[in-house]
Amino acid sequence: MAFGFKEVQEAYQRIAPYVRKTPLEESYYLGNAPRRVFFKLETFQRAKSFKIRGALNKLLTLTPEEAARGVVTISSGNHGSSVSYAASLLGIQTAQIIVPETAPQSKIDKIRYFGGQPLLMGKDYDEAHALGMDYVRQHGMTYIDPYYDDPLVYAGQGTIAIEILEQNPDIDTILVPIGGGALLTGIAVAAKAIKPSVRVIGVQTEACPAMIRAYEDNQFYPDFPCEGSLCDSLIGGIGALSYQMAKHYVNDLIAVSEETIGRAVSFMARKEKYIVEAGSCTTVAAVMDWPERVGGKNIALVLSGGNIDGEVLCSLMQKYPC
Amino acid sequence: MAFGFKEVQEAYQRIAPYVRKTPLEESYYLGNAPRRVFFKLETFQRAKSFKIRGALNKLLTLTPEEAARGVVTISSGNHGSSVSYAASLLGIQTAQIIVPETAPQSKIDKIRYFGGQPLLMGKDYDEAHALGMDYVRQHGMTYIDPYYDDPLVYAGQGTIAIEILEQNPDIDTILVPIGGGALLTGIAVAAKAIKPSVRVIGVQTEACPAMIRAYEDNQFYPDFPCEGSLCDSLIGGIGALSYQMAKHYVNDLIAVSEETIGRAVSFMARKEKYIVEAGSCTTVAAVMDWPERVGGKNIALVLSGGNIDGEVLCSLMQKYPC
Repeated sequence: MAFGFKEVQEAYQRIAPYVRKTPLEESYYLGNAPRRVFFKLETFQRAKSFKIRGALNKLLTLTPEEAARGVVTISSGNHGSSVSYAASLLGIQTAQIIVPETAPQSKIDKIRYFGGQPLLMGKDYDEAHALGMDYVRQHGMTYIDPYYDDPLVYAGQGTIAIEILEQNPDIDTILVPIGGGALLTGIAVAAKAIKPSVRVIGVQTEACPAMIRAYEDNQFYPDFPCEGSLCDSLIGGIGALSYQMAKHYVNDLIAVSEETIGRAVSFMARKEKYIVEAGSCTTVAAVMDWPERVGGKNIALVLSGGNIDGEVLCSLMQKYPC
Repeated sequence: MAFGFKEVQEAYQRIAPYVRKTPLEESYYLGNAPRRVFFKLETFQRAKSFKIRGALNKLLTLTPEEAARGVVTISSGNHGSSVSYAASLLGIQTAQIIVPETAPQSKIDKIRYFGGQPLLMGKDYDEAHALGMDYVRQHGMTYIDPYYDDPLVYAGQGTIAIEILEQNPDIDTILVPIGGGALLTGIAVAAKAIKPSVRVIGVQTEACPAMIRAYEDNQFYPDFPCEGSLCDSLIGGIGALSYQMAKHYVNDLIAVSEETIGRAVSFMARKEKYIVEAGSCTTVAAVMDWPERVGGKNIALVLSGGNIDGEVLCSLMQKYPC
């Protein structure tokens, strides 16, 4: 179980007709001559998240029989929306998205909007996951892993690196948020293959530093106890594949405070005029709090998604006037 | 003094290497089967405004001598930033941007950021304009008209219509905010040439319905007394060229309330996750308040710019929780 640049290149060709090549836009305010900072705006990706890249790469490799039987996943967040949307784009009729019974109506509506069929199970995410995995075993559909173990998903996420270095070959440093680690690992593998001198840095919230701890403790954490966090998309353990691979490709891992993440969300909306979810603002927070450690002259911050609750956004903008 | 589709097509070819083909993204919340609503996101244009289209089309037709002498304009808003940016993209060294002495530092900084040279004159926009026009006459530089009278600027703005109908040929209705009228007129001329059945609707704020009044009163208003408005970019009179031409191409003119515009700004940020300036949200407001009158099955709302003050955005999001 592994993947390399070849798989990322194949993914790039495969998903190109369906994904948006998102802009790499220079920051107005974060740079300081001669240092330039760029945003890789996956907030403008279809369904407002990078996750559609991995989902499409997986769905496009199903056999016609598998596609006819349909797919299933467990996620009330960006992965669920992205699998729904990817399935509709490809004409796959059945895309069942398992969510906890307690999921907010707005998330259930969004799955439906993108063409998926929400299936309510269990009172929280853990219960939904246990019941969902039983359901998957009993039915003949293909399970679309959110990120933990599927090299096809990792390869899809890695296509972002090809775009970044095509859009600006001078990029020497890439910052990537870490949830399960597929985005970081995919980007690191591809970026180093294209430009071996490029530095790739993963960023976690201090509320859930699962990967940092895993390497410190030399122990794989498929689950990890987290404090309350603004970054719903970054909460939990990491993937086995990312635990195996990231250390060989990643130059540094930085943890940023929830306080700075909140400030970064407000800064991005008020000053740079982009709505970015808190998890993605970890990369902005890293540049704010650790400019020396981040280093580099041409820095790309991966802003992985734009789905933030309106009320959370508004309260962070009030709390941090910049 | 006029222009037609041929001039818009020429502009399209001319500016293509420099502008971003902005996305036409479907709204999650505004449509109602079988009615679909799409956003033409000029908020993602370079310098976050459509104005760079007209500015580039003008600058690209200067002779080498004119380009060497440089350009000048009078604007502290999107036009000033866009002329600055267009000039740097084309290697035009001198781009003097005249602004009132009272212009906020952030706007002056932005002109500099985009490579222009701010020139402070006069205590308000009217005085800056009078002194600025004297300055233009005394110096040998080319004056870049914000929108009033230059067919090249109108043709540049009209390129948006080519993109919209290429991105979705089913679009049957296009809503466009009206400031001076160049954007509306440019889009209307081009859209009707491509698809004669398409309906084009201009939208103004009730605080400054200069074009609506001009046609009601059968009188050209180069200036117009306006009430206080959220829509700084839509304030003032209209262009002679748009007054002459719009009536032949535009199907309807709608005025929307400041209240609904404020609500639309909040809705766009909280729900759709786009930061859109108030003037551009007039088109969203029109769909909210006048769904029947707007009509159509596939409606494109031109969101012309994304430069809204952070404090204004925050206070509107607090005021209108959706």
